Order: sequence, then C-alpha cells, then structure tokens
Amino acid sequence: MSDNWYIGIDLGGTSVKMAFIDDDAQIIDKWDIKTDTTNDGENIVSDISKSIKSKIEEHQKDKDLIKGIGMGAPGFLEMETGFVYQAVNIGWKNYPLKEELEKSVGLPVIVDNDANIAAIGEMWRGAAEGAKDVLCITLGTGVGGGVIAGGEIIHGVNGMAGEIGHTTAVTDGGVLCNCGKTGCLETVSSATAIRRMAIDGFRDHPESPLKKQYDTNGDISSKDVLDRAKEQDHLAMSVVKKVAFHLGFALASFATTMNPSKIVIGGGVSKAGDTLLDPVKHYFKMYALPRVNEGVEIVPAQLGNDAGVIGGAWLAKTKL
Amino acid sequence: MSDNWYIGIDLGGTSVKMAFIDDDAQIIDKWDIKTDTTNDGENIVSDISKSIKSKIEEHQKDKDLIKGIGMGAPGFLEMETGFVYQAVNIGWKNYPLKEELEKSVGLPVIVDNDANIAAIGEMWRGAAEGAKDVLCITLGTGVGGGVIAGGEIIHGVNGMAGEIGHTTAVTDGGVLCNCGKTGCLETVSSATAIRRMAIDGFRDHPESPLKKQYDTNGDISSKDVLDRAKEQDHLAMSVVKKVAFHLGFALASFATTMNPSKIVIGGGVSKAGDTLLDPVKHYFKMYALPRVNEGVEIVPAQLGNDAGVIGGAWLAKTKL
Repeated sequence: MSDNWYIGIDLGGTSVKMAFIDDDAQIIDKWDIKTDTTNDGENIVSDISKSIKSKIEEHQKDKDLIKGIGMGAPGFLEMETGFVYQAVNIGWKNYPLKEELEKSVGLPVIVDNDANIAAIGEMWRGAAEGAKDVLCITLGTGVGGGVIAGGEIIHGVNGMAGEIGHTTAVTDGGVLCNCGKTGCLETVSSATAIRRMAIDGFRDHPESPLKKQYDTNGDISSKDVLDRAKEQDHLAMSVVKKVAFHLGFALASFATTMNPSKIVIGGGVSKAGDTLLDPVKHYFKMYALPRVNEGVEIVPAQLGNDAGVIGGAWLAKTKL
Repeated sequence: MSDNWYIGIDLGGTSVKMAFIDDDAQIIDKWDIKTDTTNDGENIVSDISKSIKSKIEEHQKDKDLIKGIGMGAPGFLEMETGFVYQAVNIGWKNYPLKEELEKSVGLPVIVDNDANIAAIGEMWRGAAEGAKDVLCITLGTGVGGGVIAGGEIIHGVNGMAGEIGHTTAVTDGGVLCNCGKTGCLETVSSATAIRRMAIDGFRDHPESPLKKQYDTNGDISSKDVLDRAKEQDHLAMSVVKKVAFHLGFALASFATTMNPSKIVIGGGVSKAGDTLLDPVKHYFKMYALPRVNEGVEIVPAQLGNDAGVIGGAWLAKTKL
C-alpha cells in the first residue's frame, strides 16, 4: 500500500460522495454528505471542505501525502479551468469550482463531468481495467455516457462528447426527449422509457401480469418490467427486445467508428444482467463490422456508486 | 521557410504519391510513381527508395536535414511496429513495411493507414486546420473515414477506428456491401451507390434525362447524377435527398457522441458542393443535439490528393 492518497469527489443533486483512495485505486475510507442546493448551492464547497478536513484529522494523515482532489460535477463545465457554466441540479451558474475548492481545502483540484469520471473509474480498476478505448453507457432515469480513446477521456469541442443517449434512435415519430429533440436513444432505453413502453403495451397484452400489477399498485417500475422479462412474460420480453435493438444498433455504430475494446453498461437498467445483455449483443453483432465485434467485449459496470470517486482519484493522480 | 524537410508518402493501388514537405506544411516538391503490384508487391519499397534517393540528389539536399518519412498504406496495419497484416490492393501480407523502408532509404519511418493520414493532413493545413476534434469522411467508390479526438488520430483496439462507411444505415433489407454486411452507409452514400440508386429509380422516373443518357451511352456515373441534381432533375434530387438523409443521420450520431469541431467531407462525391452539403446539414441539424450542432462546421475537404502526403509529413514531424 502506498503512502500517497488522493481525494475523489462525486457531486450529485442529492449527495456528495467522497473517498480517500491510494495509488492502487483502493478505497481507504468513503463517506458522503447531503448536497445543500439552497441559495444556488453556495454552501456546497465549504461543506465539502469542512468534511474533508475533519476526515483528514480523523485519519491523522499528513496533508503533504494527499496529492490532490479529483472531482466530478454534473452539467456543463470547462475542464482546463474547472469553471462550471451551468449545473442545473446543483444551482450553480458561472461558478469557479476549482478555484473555490482549492482556496477552501488548500489542495490542488481537477474537475471533470460526472459521466466522464465514472468512465475513468471503470477504466482504472473496474470493468474496463487496462483498456484504452472504452465506451461507458449508463442506463438510468436518463442515458449518459463517457468515451475514452487512446487512454484519454474525450471531451469534444464544447464538452458534449459522450452524449450517446441523445443520438437519434427513432428518425420519424419518436417520443419527445428531455433535451428537446424527439426519438433519442434515451427515449427507448432508459428506465423511464422501459416503464413507458410497457404501459403503452397494455392494450396489446392485457393478459400480462404487469397490467395487473399496474392496476393493483397504480404504477410499475422498469425493474418490474425487467424482472417479468426474466420470467418470459411476452409484453416484458417485447419491451426488452425493443430496448436491445436500439442499444445494439447505437453501440454498433459507435464501435464501428471508434473500435473500442470494452463497452461498459451501467446504471439501474443494467442490473437486468444477461436478460438485457444477451439480446444487446445479438443486435450489436448484426450491425457491427465482424472485426469490430471480435475486438470488443460488452460487459456490465463493476464499480457501481464508487466509479465516480475512483475516477476522480485517477484524475488527481495522473493530471495534477 | 525552415531547413527541415519531411517526406510524405501515400501508397495507393495504382500510384505512390510522394512529397518533400517543410515545417510549415509547404510542399517543396511532389511526384508519383506507379505501384508495381506484381509478385505480391515485392518491388514497391525498393522503387520508392530509388525514387526518393534520386529526388534528394536532384535537390542537392543534405540528408541530415530530412527528418524522416511518414507513410500511409491501405489495409490493416499496426502503427507501433509499422507491420502490415494485409493490404489486398497492394499484395502485401504480413509485411514489415517500416523495417524494410528504413533499411532501404536510411531514414526513420512511421506508418499509418491511408484514411488516417489524409485526415491528419486536413487537420494540419487543410479544412480542419487547428481543430482538435475532427471527423474526415471520404465519399468515393467506397466510404472511408478518419477520426481525430483531442488532437490525436484514433486507431481503436485493432486499427478499425474511422470505418464510419460501415456503420449500418439501413437496418432491414439493405443492399449487400463489399464488407459482407448489408445496409452499410457506404451502400447509400458512395459514388457506386449514387449510380445504383439512380438506375433503380428509372422505373419511377422514366422521364429523367438520366435515363436517356443511360440508354444512349450504356451507363451513367455518380457525377452525372449529381450534375442533374443541380439542374433540379427529380430523380437526381431524390437520390441526393436519400444520400443526404443517411449521411446527415450518421454524422449526427457520430457528432453527438464525439462532439467534433469539424466534419470534413472529401472524395469525388463531395465535388457536388452545396448541392449535397446543404441537405446533409439539414438532416444533421434535425438529428444532432443543438449544442453539438452549434459547435461543428461541416466543410468540404481542401487538400484533395495532397492530403495524404501532408498528413504523412505531420506524422514524421511530430511522432519520430
């Protein structure tokens, strides 16, 4: 075990996850605090700072051995300057995050967006360990993504790289997406979409236990749908097939252009495991170049909620 | 003008293009020789070597001021070692290109594939000058591509990155592609595809002058179709619309995931200019995230046949 520690921070709309992490990506300690979004999030940085200082004291750690902080934040930001243009869920607008956090904690800080640090975490010590060309896609309420090419996280010209959830899956007559477009991959592969597509299917599948569940409980969740698919329910299976078709197609297009060695699928929906992964791989193979298909593994994410803090620590270790 | 020269080589199935290029990407001299594909291409390297040596003599250039050779070759190769696994049009199989050329010319050599060096050329001094995130797509007999992200050419895990021509455009009932799949972007946007789609349209558009041209001359070319589209011929316009739809969709998917600042369209088909580019931009905007669309310019390639040798020189300048 090395003596150097790094601090990984993963800022979300409800909690701030933090961890001390060593050179081998081992978590020494992890904890979280509530995200205080009142007053446009003005207390967040001082809350983080107090919490870190007290944890350093608790561990009786020499501060010189803590090399720096790598932090992920949601929203639009500029990595070079650590300046956050807008983070809607947090309340920040034109907020100099890196500058404020450095002043407050007294350690160097590097900032990237939350989807990117999660991808880096999976590359450092997760499902894509050691891989240099990776796509991480997170199927949750929405669909996010992070792209690593040649071992580096790709930001693109204005920080939008990785938004595979907003590639178009349905070219004509698609459902309205949160982003304002219609027919995005997110509208046919997120947890939200799975629930909606199942409910839309009640007309054609009135016999499905999902309909009974809905009538009894007033709602169903995406997990209900995925569980029923495992039990071979026709409606649930038809929804999974649709999700897998669109995911397989989008991932194949990405892979044929970027030739990754790993595609990591995370987020709540990915917990369906092979029920989802097997048909995704089927469609992927159908639409990808054979040599591209041979070069890639499609795997579930491994780090869960720790991906962000581990990726943050990697940033601090390699970029500061 | 700097005293350092670099040699760019662009190997094709019919000719080898070569140039002396200085630090500012200026071409000092360019020339080409025939590609001798007899005996599995065994004479190509010695032909290149002889030609270069005689040109160095002609220019009375001090060989110490020639820093190295950057070469593009078609087919599958490993950049690190300059080893060519297979180059079908050349005849090479398991050929140590870098090693042989270094031995023969006595200068350091770096090798990449032909689509990639063309993309680099456009990034160094062409349509994407100064851009760090670029897609170059070449619409010729086939459809090739090169991806630059964060200023570096992306190879992927087994050298396939950039094969956007083989992303699937038609998911069901597409035309058979040279790669063995069906419905590839190449089958609906190459010169070959444009000719085929126009001929397929004769039934519905017997009045089109393209049909008369075909009946008179026994054939039509993609250029004929693109020329007629400029003259508002309905059949030709319907073909261009189809090409533009598929290109706009594929480019938008790429851009939403990689967020480039430039998309450079080259190859014979791109000579149609705005007749093609305007509808491509229309569909691109329809299918890309607004912020992605704002960040990118879709532009015609500038360097034509010189892109490869200029990109080769950049490789020699920056990577040797």
